Amino acid sequence: MPTKKRVTIALIAEEAGVSVPTVSKVINGRPEVAPETRQRVERLLHLHGYQRRVGQADGPAGLVDLVFSEIESPWAMEIVRGAETAAREAGASVVISVLHTHAGPGRDWLERIAARRTDGVVIVASRLSAGLQRQLSARSMPFVVVDPEGEPPPNVASVGATNWNGGLAATRHLLELGHRRIGIIGGPADMLCSRARIDGYRAALETAGVAVAPELIRRGDFLVDSGREQGRELLALADPPTAIFAGSDLQAFGVLEAARQRGLRVPEDLSVVGFDDLPLAQSAWPSLTTVRQPLQEMAALATRMVVASGPGAPEAKRVELATELVVRESTAPPRH
Amino acid sequence: MPTKKRVTIALIAEEAGVSVPTVSKVINGRPEVAPETRQRVERLLHLHGYQRRVGQADGPAGLVDLVFSEIESPWAMEIVRGAETAAREAGASVVISVLHTHAGPGRDWLERIAARRTDGVVIVASRLSAGLQRQLSARSMPFVVVDPEGEPPPNVASVGATNWNGGLAATRHLLELGHRRIGIIGGPADMLCSRARIDGYRAALETAGVAVAPELIRRGDFLVDSGREQGRELLALADPPTAIFAGSDLQAFGVLEAARQRGLRVPEDLSVVGFDDLPLAQSAWPSLTTVRQPLQEMAALATRMVVASGPGAPEAKRVELATELVVRESTAPPRH
Repeated sequence: MPTKKRVTIALIAEEAGVSVPTVSKVINGRPEVAPETRQRVERLLHLHGYQRRVGQADGPAGLVDLVFSEIESPWAMEIVRGAETAAREAGASVVISVLHTHAGPGRDWLERIAARRTDGVVIVASRLSAGLQRQLSARSMPFVVVDPEGEPPPNVASVGATNWNGGLAATRHLLELGHRRIGIIGGPADMLCSRARIDGYRAALETAGVAVAPELIRRGDFLVDSGREQGRELLALADPPTAIFAGSDLQAFGVLEAARQRGLRVPEDLSVVGFDDLPLAQSAWPSLTTVRQPLQEMAALATRMVVASGPGAPEAKRVELATELVVRESTAPPRH
Repeated sequence: MPTKKRVTIALIAEEAGVSVPTVSKVINGRPEVAPETRQRVERLLHLHGYQRRVGQADGPAGLVDLVFSEIESPWAMEIVRGAETAAREAGASVVISVLHTHAGPGRDWLERIAARRTDGVVIVASRLSAGLQRQLSARSMPFVVVDPEGEPPPNVASVGATNWNGGLAATRHLLELGHRRIGIIGGPADMLCSRARIDGYRAALETAGVAVAPELIRRGDFLVDSGREQGRELLALADPPTAIFAGSDLQAFGVLEAARQRGLRVPEDLSVVGFDDLPLAQSAWPSLTTVRQPLQEMAALATRMVVASGPGAPEAKRVELATELVVRESTAPPRH
């Protein structure tokens, strides 16, 4: 009769054919273990669902790690604000890491955080490889992804916004104003949120019986410069769009610049819709019609998920918080 | 013959008339010590320049605490970026705390960070009381203040920008364009950086032989809303200014809104100068003439100062990094 055996380091060491200290080193992210050994031990820890024992003396670390690929946009500030609020409510502080790559956290980062304690990791707009997932699990570090880049591995908890609905609502708003030639600037090709926004745009056009024109679909990196560049190209087309759904507020600011440089007035000559509703969307000129996504709430929820889960993986689920169209001054019917 | 005696916990305990564990509790920020006892022990620790012994086993914590009063502005993001870069170069991560008060860090905050380890504290745009200074010193936590609010106690290391020179340069630029009626919107009354900018403004006017008009000097909180409110009031004066030095970029965005609401064109009817040169100053319409302060460098320097100082106070000095006037499209000669 099989009995569920508590998974101990000794058991893992035996199965892996290594010593107990070696398993400890892997769990604690120490460098002095051969890569193959490390991988074998990590797989076994993951396979057996090893949970680090957290004694009374340990208690929570009081730290939640928030990992960004970049923090160039005020978008990141909203994420920090939400995470900090939720962490503080749980008696914890937020540790910021910036990877400066979209490839996701690597071994360097892992060793840096394994050298101290953490109550969990919130990974923002980054790739999460199956390898990293295994390594975090092996160390009993709960993690949640906000706005994943690429397909996150199955069984990974993630938080996002209803991007598809947002793309649909933005495009429908422009269709209802009478626009038929509508450009879109997405984000990086492999960000799920960008793909969903573009698919919502397509769905709105198709439902309205408007043909999708491939030359009107562009991609940027969600920052001002790419909005300006792509906006310029769109407006330089032989048959330019009368409206642009810019994919992010910063890209919308870039499109506003491109329009000015061509001497076009917004919204009289060109309608522009953003995405995010950053605090500055309201102060832009003209103030920006945009799709609000609840960035602070998204980050707060992800933080609460890792804190609440204790030393184990949070329940793997995908949560999408609602987006909402906010109509301001940058959209109007097209000129005839 | 006096010999320099190494300050031990035992010595402090003896002088304070308490037990050794009580002194340890004070150093580690544990709550179960009577307030008067805690104060007496902290004073003695400070007086004797007690340095916590950092053994090999301890090593650096790998964490630098970055403490904000608020993080509502993209200004804070620049500070985070600079601190994170410098910390990462030193192999450390940045922990963010937001106090949601300008009164400075209190005992709650101190107990939360004393419960774990830190390599030092960077306090941003906040008050630093003599009490807190004593408490941080007693715990051998190095600290540096960026843009202090109020007069920081003597012997406190701080980093800022040449705010007086920046205020002078902004106002001179407007004077040289031919403006004589120039409004200014400062920040919170007790922030040193705000006082210095206003003094620079006065100095420029006085040097040019232009009378300082008290009704043209206003104060806000450096955010968009107060720029809009104060801008509205300035423009509603019987003899309104032809130019406004807005004191911060966000306040300048608010002044731009107030001008639009009155149907005034910038720069034809009103010139506007910001302060900070946030990334978005360039994308504003019109793009903002502003005084650049090197926010990332300021935060990076403060972070390097605490990390480099080890378990002791950084050399108490005030460092001011240079500001620079950046002329863009929001300023022009006044109409005649």
